Amino acid sequence: EPHSQRRRSDDVSCLRARPHRRLPKPKGAGARGSPPGRRGRPRAERMQKELETNPGLYPFDEIIYCNLSNPHYLGQQPIKFFREVLALCDYPHLLNCSVTSSIFSSDAITRAREILDLIPGRAMGGYSHCQGTEGLRNAIAVGIATRDAFPCNAEDIFLTDGAAAPVHMVMHLLIRDEKDGILCPIPSHFLYTSSMALCGATLVPYYLDESGGWAVSISDLKKQLDGARSEGITVRGLVVVNPGNPTGQVLVKENQCEIVEFCRIENLVLLADEVYQENVYTDEKRFISFKKIARSMGFGEEDISLISFHSVSNGYYGECGRRGGYMEVTGFNSEVRKQVYKVASLSSCSNLAGQVLVSLVMNPPKVGDESYTSYWEERDRIMLSLSRCAEAMVQAFNSLEGLTCSKAEGAMFVFPSVRLPKRAIAAAEAMNTKPDVFYALRLLENTGIVVLPGSVFGQVPGTWHFRCTILQQEEKIQLIINRFKAFHETFMEEFRD
Amino acid sequence: EPHSQRRRSDDVSCLRARPHRRLPKPKGAGARGSPPGRRGRPRAERMQKELETNPGLYPFDEIIYCNLSNPHYLGQQPIKFFREVLALCDYPHLLNCSVTSSIFSSDAITRAREILDLIPGRAMGGYSHCQGTEGLRNAIAVGIATRDAFPCNAEDIFLTDGAAAPVHMVMHLLIRDEKDGILCPIPSHFLYTSSMALCGATLVPYYLDESGGWAVSISDLKKQLDGARSEGITVRGLVVVNPGNPTGQVLVKENQCEIVEFCRIENLVLLADEVYQENVYTDEKRFISFKKIARSMGFGEEDISLISFHSVSNGYYGECGRRGGYMEVTGFNSEVRKQVYKVASLSSCSNLAGQVLVSLVMNPPKVGDESYTSYWEERDRIMLSLSRCAEAMVQAFNSLEGLTCSKAEGAMFVFPSVRLPKRAIAAAEAMNTKPDVFYALRLLENTGIVVLPGSVFGQVPGTWHFRCTILQQEEKIQLIINRFKAFHETFMEEFRD
Repeated sequence: EPHSQRRRSDDVSCLRARPHRRLPKPKGAGARGSPPGRRGRPRAERMQKELETNPGLYPFDEIIYCNLSNPHYLGQQPIKFFREVLALCDYPHLLNCSVTSSIFSSDAITRAREILDLIPGRAMGGYSHCQGTEGLRNAIAVGIATRDAFPCNAEDIFLTDGAAAPVHMVMHLLIRDEKDGILCPIPSHFLYTSSMALCGATLVPYYLDESGGWAVSISDLKKQLDGARSEGITVRGLVVVNPGNPTGQVLVKENQCEIVEFCRIENLVLLADEVYQENVYTDEKRFISFKKIARSMGFGEEDISLISFHSVSNGYYGECGRRGGYMEVTGFNSEVRKQVYKVASLSSCSNLAGQVLVSLVMNPPKVGDESYTSYWEERDRIMLSLSRCAEAMVQAFNSLEGLTCSKAEGAMFVFPSVRLPKRAIAAAEAMNTKPDVFYALRLLENTGIVVLPGSVFGQVPGTWHFRCTILQQEEKIQLIINRFKAFHETFMEEFRD
Repeated sequence: EPHSQRRRSDDVSCLRARPHRRLPKPKGAGARGSPPGRRGRPRAERMQKELETNPGLYPFDEIIYCNLSNPHYLGQQPIKFFREVLALCDYPHLLNCSVTSSIFSSDAITRAREILDLIPGRAMGGYSHCQGTEGLRNAIAVGIATRDAFPCNAEDIFLTDGAAAPVHMVMHLLIRDEKDGILCPIPSHFLYTSSMALCGATLVPYYLDESGGWAVSISDLKKQLDGARSEGITVRGLVVVNPGNPTGQVLVKENQCEIVEFCRIENLVLLADEVYQENVYTDEKRFISFKKIARSMGFGEEDISLISFHSVSNGYYGECGRRGGYMEVTGFNSEVRKQVYKVASLSSCSNLAGQVLVSLVMNPPKVGDESYTSYWEERDRIMLSLSRCAEAMVQAFNSLEGLTCSKAEGAMFVFPSVRLPKRAIAAAEAMNTKPDVFYALRLLENTGIVVLPGSVFGQVPGTWHFRCTILQQEEKIQLIINRFKAFHETFMEEFRD
């Protein structure tokens, strides 16, 4: 009885709906609450404050946030060209100053003029069309079409404040009540599980195949789908995150084709989280959008309903705080499209600077532009740094007793598995703590390194993981690895069975 | 049976919840769908496109959008100081260029430095705390405390992407199911009615008193509340919009005190839409926040639960497209606070540039700052223009047969009542159109002027209104008035009983 699950406190009810887990669910899977960026932070931040007043309190001199997917906060510099254009659009008076050409690159000036011409009234302070400024959507559609080598319609683009808002919106549209379900990967980012909780959906979990490089197992998908249906759940969609968070895999094309075929046959809306599309670190794989996959298979608008999410919070640029993003909505009839439009219109529009930034990341400087060389240098520097960090961490983790770590092919994370000794598990249970949380807390207390325990994302019962970002400045990587190794060896020594 | 009211189409359900109107409801009250900025626009935009290719098609040469509360789109220029600071924060490299001091005002440079110092990592591209950057919230709290002469706690501030997102969030927190209701003014902005529809709340309407200058009638409030309770509805909150939209009134202090007392006694959360707090055009009244009213009456945190909404989309600055805003949440226990925080954290944070802009509008240049004089000149020019536009329109409307228009004391609108002749009503009904829609369409077709019919906002049955903005450039006002007068006289002539 859903109502009885609702908590009340004072005069305001709490989160309205709770996930109705009618399906077998792994312990700890799909935990929800604060986003990963926040998790573990209160304790770590308290320790950081303590260190400021009492530097000798802990056996380390600083907190190292390997939990935060927040590159600029961690010291990454913004891409110059993007910020030049934003500044010029924000204060167009600069375009009339003679000195501007001495401090801004010429292509940034040209681009800013072009962008302002696309905005009705040249008004960065005006509401746009609720899907976003038409001219910017046209530019983004060109960027997507270039990426995919398949057409993209600007009418299918909805510009959004990051990716969280449109995910909540789509869940709200898809889910009528707790008899409706969504297939969601385990492990997965809190965004999907919490969004489902908020709209009262039934979460239908499927496991990513760790030994297969975190691939999507179609047989597990089918099993979970059939199980849910046999319990009367109408499964309406399937979430796929590629490149993966927290798992860092890039799906192979064949796996993507299987997923598309599965959704088509089972009549599921494919919700493709493609926010890490520019974060691929292996030469052996490249990002392919699910739309490109579907179209390559010959499936058009009539065959599959597909929503792709992207955000400027990720990529090499990592502009989290700007809250720009888009969703591309294809394969729905006009009646449904009207409803999507209606709900989108309730928030007026996404922020114009974020809209501009999306248009920039989808159309960066081109050969011949003044910024072309410096832009690629900045981009390469960031991508190579992420790649080297990932490689160093994976190698280090795999060298340690009981740790196994898949290659970081994409996104911003590694998600190693830790075989915890029985005595460590018992010690955690004695403290009424999950074993992976116990391990992460011990790590924090001994090294100042913050990682997120696997139970935040969900994991196969009896396995334990943690998520570690690959965003640290390179000069710190070796320090982090050394501290981590020393901690892990001591930990294993202490709890060895 | 709520479920039977749910529409489905294709594989995606439509708006999940429908308002469950168990209470007597005026015809046309609380219509929902596209926001006012969008309503009537498709037809008007089609006509505008027709005019471009075929200039002689209509008896006018342009469409005049008196439906849009989008000042910059309509030609209003942004406040220079605000945009200078935004540009410097977006591209901090400018702070190191010697020429910067020749093109930016000195206080903008100082302010940008101060703001960047408040942002962790000086990173406009970083996620902030999910309530917004702490340092900016502190600055905003100082601004609020100065406004009210009562303390404000930065912990109570949640920085938001405009006002729509936090209203949806609060509704979501307040409403458990259709047995929960919210008292909502009629007429009122679509935001509240659509938000309630989305979360399945029961809308409990109360009428603003047109003959009393659109005041809140406590006896009507009480009647509606008792009626709802007798039908088993748990009424959890009361929405008040001050200054009013679409009605343009500024509530008198005594009326505000009655409202606070009513909420306190009836244990209702007071949802105070105060987004037009800077738009007051009469010397006889001034904006007083509901928090100041409550604290002045001696009511503290324990006595009344109050949420105040503000947005940078309004005020003299009208920065709609920047999507900045805040809500101030007071009078809840720590358990509820935690839930508000939890839901806020699901969208990571609001856009940083919007956060910066909120801090600027709450702390504009002060005496002695280089921008002080020019800032006030810009501000006065806009405010006086709005004020003169409002006065000219009110006077013109009141001079016409059958039109009555309350003084525009605040916000950006007038909402005149039109006594339509019986033959006009019959003609509308023959076309299966609401009489006020019929009138507005006739106005559009004959003059190119777009207004929103009263049925968009709700009105006392048998009365007809339209909402007209006061945002037009002054040189156009007389033209609009002349066209309007000529239309109205012809209309009345045509349909006179």
